[in-house]
Amino acid sequence: MSSLDRTFAVIMAGGVGSRFWPLSRARRPKQLLDLFGHGSMLRATFERLAPLVPAERQLVVTSALLGDAVRQALPELPPANVLEEPTGRNTAPAIGWAALEVQRRDPAGLLAVLPADQFIADVPRYREIVTQAISACAADRIVTLGIPPTRPETGYGYIRAGASAACPEAPELREVAAFHEKPDLDTALEWLASGGYLWNAGMFFLPATLALSELARYEPELARGLDALYDGGAPPDAARLAAVYPTLRSISIDYAVMERSDRAAVIPGDFGWSDVGSWRTLWDFRPEGAESFSRGRVIEIDGGGNVLLADGDGLVATVGVRDLVVVHTADATLVCPREASQRVRDIVTALQSGQGDPWL
Amino acid sequence: MSSLDRTFAVIMAGGVGSRFWPLSRARRPKQLLDLFGHGSMLRATFERLAPLVPAERQLVVTSALLGDAVRQALPELPPANVLEEPTGRNTAPAIGWAALEVQRRDPAGLLAVLPADQFIADVPRYREIVTQAISACAADRIVTLGIPPTRPETGYGYIRAGASAACPEAPELREVAAFHEKPDLDTALEWLASGGYLWNAGMFFLPATLALSELARYEPELARGLDALYDGGAPPDAARLAAVYPTLRSISIDYAVMERSDRAAVIPGDFGWSDVGSWRTLWDFRPEGAESFSRGRVIEIDGGGNVLLADGDGLVATVGVRDLVVVHTADATLVCPREASQRVRDIVTALQSGQGDPWL
Repeated sequence: MSSLDRTFAVIMAGGVGSRFWPLSRARRPKQLLDLFGHGSMLRATFERLAPLVPAERQLVVTSALLGDAVRQALPELPPANVLEEPTGRNTAPAIGWAALEVQRRDPAGLLAVLPADQFIADVPRYREIVTQAISACAADRIVTLGIPPTRPETGYGYIRAGASAACPEAPELREVAAFHEKPDLDTALEWLASGGYLWNAGMFFLPATLALSELARYEPELARGLDALYDGGAPPDAARLAAVYPTLRSISIDYAVMERSDRAAVIPGDFGWSDVGSWRTLWDFRPEGAESFSRGRVIEIDGGGNVLLADGDGLVATVGVRDLVVVHTADATLVCPREASQRVRDIVTALQSGQGDPWL
Repeated sequence: MSSLDRTFAVIMAGGVGSRFWPLSRARRPKQLLDLFGHGSMLRATFERLAPLVPAERQLVVTSALLGDAVRQALPELPPANVLEEPTGRNTAPAIGWAALEVQRRDPAGLLAVLPADQFIADVPRYREIVTQAISACAADRIVTLGIPPTRPETGYGYIRAGASAACPEAPELREVAAFHEKPDLDTALEWLASGGYLWNAGMFFLPATLALSELARYEPELARGLDALYDGGAPPDAARLAAVYPTLRSISIDYAVMERSDRAAVIPGDFGWSDVGSWRTLWDFRPEGAESFSRGRVIEIDGGGNVLLADGDGLVATVGVRDLVVVHTADATLVCPREASQRVRDIVTALQSGQGDPWL
């Protein structure tokens, strides 16, 4: 049995992102949005993996709020493959739960942990690298994919790549010299210039047994809590989930395991990655030769540099405006400068502190 | 019986204005909009006049498309007081029809012709001047109200005021020296500086008999067509309207009568008039000390100089933008620079030439 045949995708789809408000809402966060007109990013993640990992072995970890929407978006998935967290506890408990579920199904199963809300331009290359990563991790490694940086980004963590790991199945595999927290701008500029630093994009591959043993080693209390979930070997029912899950330590897998483990390795992922982190990012996806990015029904007269999006049957009409984000949904409109589109969070904050319920 | 007791208001409400798109639509033009939160401009016009002219003597001339909406907006009005043009033929036929209807009800009736889509700041002063105008017109005069200009406006016609008309009932009445078409900017600047020029705001007062005799004198063919409407003395039924009205000459009352008549007089109307001609104009109505004009549910963070309007239960949210117009309706959003808000017409034109039906 090849590594690929033992691989379970673990799609992380619990995000509550507010950066795409008003299109994103509590019940329709970024991973469920159709920003490009080809379906949701969650669905795209599923479809990218499907030739490597069949639906039966794709798990999605999400929130209870989103479980039904996830099943609707991925009707191919067995319903039991959607793991609904009763409350968000960051990535380490989520991955621990998925590892236990994978181990229950296949004691020698491998995990391919992949965020549900990322864009990949070159899917064939992506599949090549994922295949390498899966092969490599079977030898008890934690293989991350590191994205070669294209700008001095201060919003991501970084991975410094070390020497070649000399892995025959994964010729591009390198040791991890260090994980780094989000840098300041000067440091980011330095790292960008120096080469050898990669963005940590939250994609990694490891055996379920290794995930659990590393958790037990570095976060024993969390590991014991997780064990209680599968007490007796059966998946937790709603009552046990509700009793146990909220007591688990809320910690990221990076802090809990990656930055401490000596098993980490990295493959540079040169497949055109974007986390589509803000409205501004969509501008990079405008068609060749177009001055603006448009989605939905848009009339733009005498303008450019804009990100214009009309949800559903709505219409966005502009005359003579430049470098703006304009998003229309049936019940709300956002307007902000394109280069300040992360400030949409200020609006969400204002809504949260006011009577914003209909719009959250 | 005083002049006031013989006065019929003729509210001109046929406008199809597209300058307030997307709030205004074919079935909801400017006069039916609630731009200020105190009800529609049509209703405000009715209520301003109501202490002088009771509902039984207020007529509204509008289009067949808008008849029901007008009756809904003014439930006090006898349904027969809404005159529905089967097709728009400009103001002269509309006023001719109204004059015939007034004459049928009171052969000595007077007409107070008033647009349905204007804003008046000082309503008590307005009523004073309207009362003077009504008294003065009873002596077979056509009394217009001229607005003292506050800017070199090139979008209106002008009236040059002459000597005092020495009218005891209307001490502010002056002869009309001349009517002028819309000027170019240099001329408008000159007129503004010189004083003595007033904006023609389409408000005028005259006996029904004079309206009809002047039409017969200057536009005999139109007058004959109008007579055919009331053949036998009864108001026209739908069939006669449909047969006759579209054949009437489409011409404004200014061209047809005002500029030719020797009966014209004018009272300067210093009652805080605005025709609220564009989105930009609303900015002048922002509250004391406010940087932006807002209507409906609006969140504005770190911005100013904006006109922000959310229709119905919608929300407009902006961060860091200045001097824009942003209008949200359930099915469309408009964004344009405040000082170019007249360019909304370009959008309406684009919709008309495309498949814009849902938004027109």
